[in-house]
Amino acid sequence: MRLGIDIGGTKTAAVAIGADGELSDQVRMPTGFGAEAVVATALRTVDRMTEIAGVEASAFSSIGIGIPGAVDSRTGRVAHAVNLGLEGLELGSRLADRLGVDVRVENDVKAAALGAHHLLGVADGILAHSMAYLNLGTGLAAGIVLDGRLLRGEQGVAGEIGHIPVDPAGDRCGCGQRGCLETVASGWAVSRSWPTEHPLPARALFDAADAGDVRAIAVRERFLTGVAAAVRLLALTTDVDDVVIGGGLAALGDPLVSGTRRILNGWAAESAFLASLDLAARVQVIPIGFPAAAVGAALVGEHQWPKS
Amino acid sequence: MRLGIDIGGTKTAAVAIGADGELSDQVRMPTGFGAEAVVATALRTVDRMTEIAGVEASAFSSIGIGIPGAVDSRTGRVAHAVNLGLEGLELGSRLADRLGVDVRVENDVKAAALGAHHLLGVADGILAHSMAYLNLGTGLAAGIVLDGRLLRGEQGVAGEIGHIPVDPAGDRCGCGQRGCLETVASGWAVSRSWPTEHPLPARALFDAADAGDVRAIAVRERFLTGVAAAVRLLALTTDVDDVVIGGGLAALGDPLVSGTRRILNGWAAESAFLASLDLAARVQVIPIGFPAAAVGAALVGEHQWPKS
Repeated sequence: MRLGIDIGGTKTAAVAIGADGELSDQVRMPTGFGAEAVVATALRTVDRMTEIAGVEASAFSSIGIGIPGAVDSRTGRVAHAVNLGLEGLELGSRLADRLGVDVRVENDVKAAALGAHHLLGVADGILAHSMAYLNLGTGLAAGIVLDGRLLRGEQGVAGEIGHIPVDPAGDRCGCGQRGCLETVASGWAVSRSWPTEHPLPARALFDAADAGDVRAIAVRERFLTGVAAAVRLLALTTDVDDVVIGGGLAALGDPLVSGTRRILNGWAAESAFLASLDLAARVQVIPIGFPAAAVGAALVGEHQWPKS
Repeated sequence: MRLGIDIGGTKTAAVAIGADGELSDQVRMPTGFGAEAVVATALRTVDRMTEIAGVEASAFSSIGIGIPGAVDSRTGRVAHAVNLGLEGLELGSRLADRLGVDVRVENDVKAAALGAHHLLGVADGILAHSMAYLNLGTGLAAGIVLDGRLLRGEQGVAGEIGHIPVDPAGDRCGCGQRGCLETVASGWAVSRSWPTEHPLPARALFDAADAGDVRAIAVRERFLTGVAAAVRLLALTTDVDDVVIGGGLAALGDPLVSGTRRILNGWAAESAFLASLDLAARVQVIPIGFPAAAVGAALVGEHQWPKS
């Protein structure tokens, strides 16, 4: 049995995966802030999972952690995770020492990509799929799985497409550049262009657009165009069969997918080249409630790429 | 001994690679136009190579072909190669039947990526490098080699980054979209923005810019910005260590590399995120005269990815 823990900015979720690929019940709890609190949260989720499974922590053949931030997956060190108040935390070895089990640490979007890949594989009966996971959260990033293995890259920044500029006249991005994909297609971008008290601003935006608000329609169109641009970019670079949208904005569900497909089909009507790629057929959204990052965290290390 | 043949729009080049990785002398001849002429050209290069090596064609353990166009590398079929007048040519099986040797066919840019990877590997003593080959020819495309294996993608379009738009207000591209990378950073883009009788318009442009022509400086800057954007895009998507520029414009040599680095360093000065990636250090240019596509063609099939 493998244990996966998704340490998010506010919540931590854990799930176990059996040898048959079956998922256990999930455990969820608030995430503490700062190094000691984060370590304590992780240990508490392991405790709870052992209670549920009726086993010792050592019964888990491995434990994987997904965490937002810059992670060295080789050493299990979190270089920084600003939202969690972490800087240079040896998370993997701290947990491994306490638990007596191998603990692997991965960036949460990359972990979620493995989780989405697992879900597709179970659905299709294919274990070595190539796909991209497009995370639309506060920011925008992708996790790329090629032939069943997670692409990390030489510096671990493979899939950081949110900081590829797509408009020289676009908004200034937090990264210092201008017109990055993230300035168009992210929770941050929606919140900026559609201020609201709604807990999911993108939902408020889509609702207003559906109700016929002309400005909302324009703002939504710009957002969807950015999402479609991210899909096109992933397809033309890596030519993956599937782009699975996840992250907080995936809660938009079908309207997000159908809107993105509409934009892609519009482009295809103007470009025989794009039409031949049938990008619209490649887009899907992760099912609401599927704990992609926790599932993927449990699988981290088995599917790493390049081998190291 | 493996034989590689690069069938270009005007010239065909061939080279053999020994078991030790050593290259034979090259054979070069004009390429015929149309299916029969292209097959005849390929057969003639094999004849010449067997003469040089003093062996029968069957002495080659495999023969690989690189060809510009849409290729199904699994079947050896060339779906279309417009510049060569080919449509639905079973190039691999036609040659294999005549030569009694396994013949593999690959898109020329992807083959060249394998050739550049081979060159880097010999230089560094590393056989499973991750790198991208950025081909600046008439158009712009990349070949991506990850962990020593060529990324083809599900439809063979991995690396077709020339048709990723980077400016909504940019020029109309031949593909039907607007502002594609290819409209900024390609031989086609240079010829359009700097009309000249010079056989290498980009050289004329760089010379005029060096001589202080203000408009040439602006045109060159736009071109170099596009090249730098392609490097950034490849790095943020695949995070390869090396981006090796090849293709006709690689003949520009050092001024191309130093200009691209200057743009990348300018961006890094504005973005701590980009600075941390040190993109300028990843850029290099293929040595003039190195037959990347022929060398890579000889290696096609051994390093394919995904496995199929």
